[in-house]
Amino acid sequence: MRNCSVEIISVGNELLLGNTVNTNATWIASQVTSLGAKVTRITAIPDDLDQISHAIREAIRRRPVFVITTGGIGPTFDDMTLRGIARALRVRLKPDRTALNMIREHYALRFPRRRLNLTKPRLKMASIPSGGKAVRNPVGTAPGVKLNVHGTEIFCLPGVPREAKAIFRDSISPSVSSRTAGSVFMERWIDVRGIMESMLAPMIDQVMRRWPGVYIKSHPSGIETGGRPRIKVHLSIGSSNVGKAKHGLLGAMHELSDKLVASGAKIARVR
Amino acid sequence: MRNCSVEIISVGNELLLGNTVNTNATWIASQVTSLGAKVTRITAIPDDLDQISHAIREAIRRRPVFVITTGGIGPTFDDMTLRGIARALRVRLKPDRTALNMIREHYALRFPRRRLNLTKPRLKMASIPSGGKAVRNPVGTAPGVKLNVHGTEIFCLPGVPREAKAIFRDSISPSVSSRTAGSVFMERWIDVRGIMESMLAPMIDQVMRRWPGVYIKSHPSGIETGGRPRIKVHLSIGSSNVGKAKHGLLGAMHELSDKLVASGAKIARVR
Repeated sequence: MRNCSVEIISVGNELLLGNTVNTNATWIASQVTSLGAKVTRITAIPDDLDQISHAIREAIRRRPVFVITTGGIGPTFDDMTLRGIARALRVRLKPDRTALNMIREHYALRFPRRRLNLTKPRLKMASIPSGGKAVRNPVGTAPGVKLNVHGTEIFCLPGVPREAKAIFRDSISPSVSSRTAGSVFMERWIDVRGIMESMLAPMIDQVMRRWPGVYIKSHPSGIETGGRPRIKVHLSIGSSNVGKAKHGLLGAMHELSDKLVASGAKIARVR
Repeated sequence: MRNCSVEIISVGNELLLGNTVNTNATWIASQVTSLGAKVTRITAIPDDLDQISHAIREAIRRRPVFVITTGGIGPTFDDMTLRGIARALRVRLKPDRTALNMIREHYALRFPRRRLNLTKPRLKMASIPSGGKAVRNPVGTAPGVKLNVHGTEIFCLPGVPREAKAIFRDSISPSVSSRTAGSVFMERWIDVRGIMESMLAPMIDQVMRRWPGVYIKSHPSGIETGGRPRIKVHLSIGSSNVGKAKHGLLGAMHELSDKLVASGAKIARVR
């Protein structure tokens, strides 16, 4: 069973102004899914101390196995994810020696001849909530942060996609894998034309009843010229038994395909 | 002042599986922002009755002026946004005559020669929470829904982007405008090269102190070949006084530009 739940909290005014599409959250969700875990909620909030601490507290109360935050851990005044977390957990933010060394190393690599001034913004990036650990950022300055709160593992990633991805791959992916060992997530798509969603609905219903565990969802994707609707159908299953998952997914796929063809719909593509 | 708060709740497993980027939420956020209102939270949740009703209840408790949901109002079994809302509000879901007429009209337009069978999936799309009103969908079958709960206006949109946008433009935009009359949101971008974010941080700090109301945020966007960092700086202001907003935004922009040039950074572009 897929019971390793993950919440994603994305911090950044740009997300709420509609300036930036939250591709970080989608990328993390796709990774988490393919590792056999389940994203249960994605929340985007502004760079606001109260809102961050509320969102963190709410997430912890739901007891997910992981909370992954993105954004707000850089050097500027409005990078306040770590302060928000410290407030939510009622702990202090304090300079961390490991984090400081990571920042030092990063600067030394990029500017071998310059001496690093430990300015306020740089010290800020090295301050993490008490009880937390710095996580190496292989491609940027601000280290990630890891905390364990009542069994929920919190990981904080930067907002820069390249850095978020690198830290996820190096440090979060192994942690999630270790909690989902043996679980798989499998999916297939059927692109179908010439059937309306309200006609497809009862077919999906029947097939899902026959193949428990398989989840089928239809996504209408517009109308062709000539008025023929196009629908993408997504079939997926999460299971700790690879054989059963495969059997269920393919069984459901064949049965649904047969029903579609019998109804006169056209299957344009299977992936 | 921009005090018209808006929460967006996006419903759909595809968002949490990482199959679909939540462009609906970003589009709505950009519209809401340019209408002078403020998106305070975006939440994505799966097609799950409990999760939908919890998210709705939590949002209402924060007392935003608007809650806009996307997804989950179609004909299939897993379209359960309206059931989730009904559960959250402890009201019944009941067939709505206006909604039914809208569905009838839509079919009549698309299939002028066929007679509409009122199948279960079609009736489902016409069932809305008691106290709610159907909202015309100018480009698709499922009508939107509008509800007023203790002063919070809830709008439910379909997940299909084209339909969500059309209903937003026709029915939500005028409602938001009427609440933000006279408010403006203005923004500018400065693309700058050759300065590190930790050097930029104190400049932003100073400029923001001098120009209260103007919000400035730096977005690192990678490293050029040669190791020169690229940063996009976003300046924005929301205000009920257009003149003051313009004055503040331009003042802050010029002052920051001067500081950047004085530091040796290169301004690549201003938009």
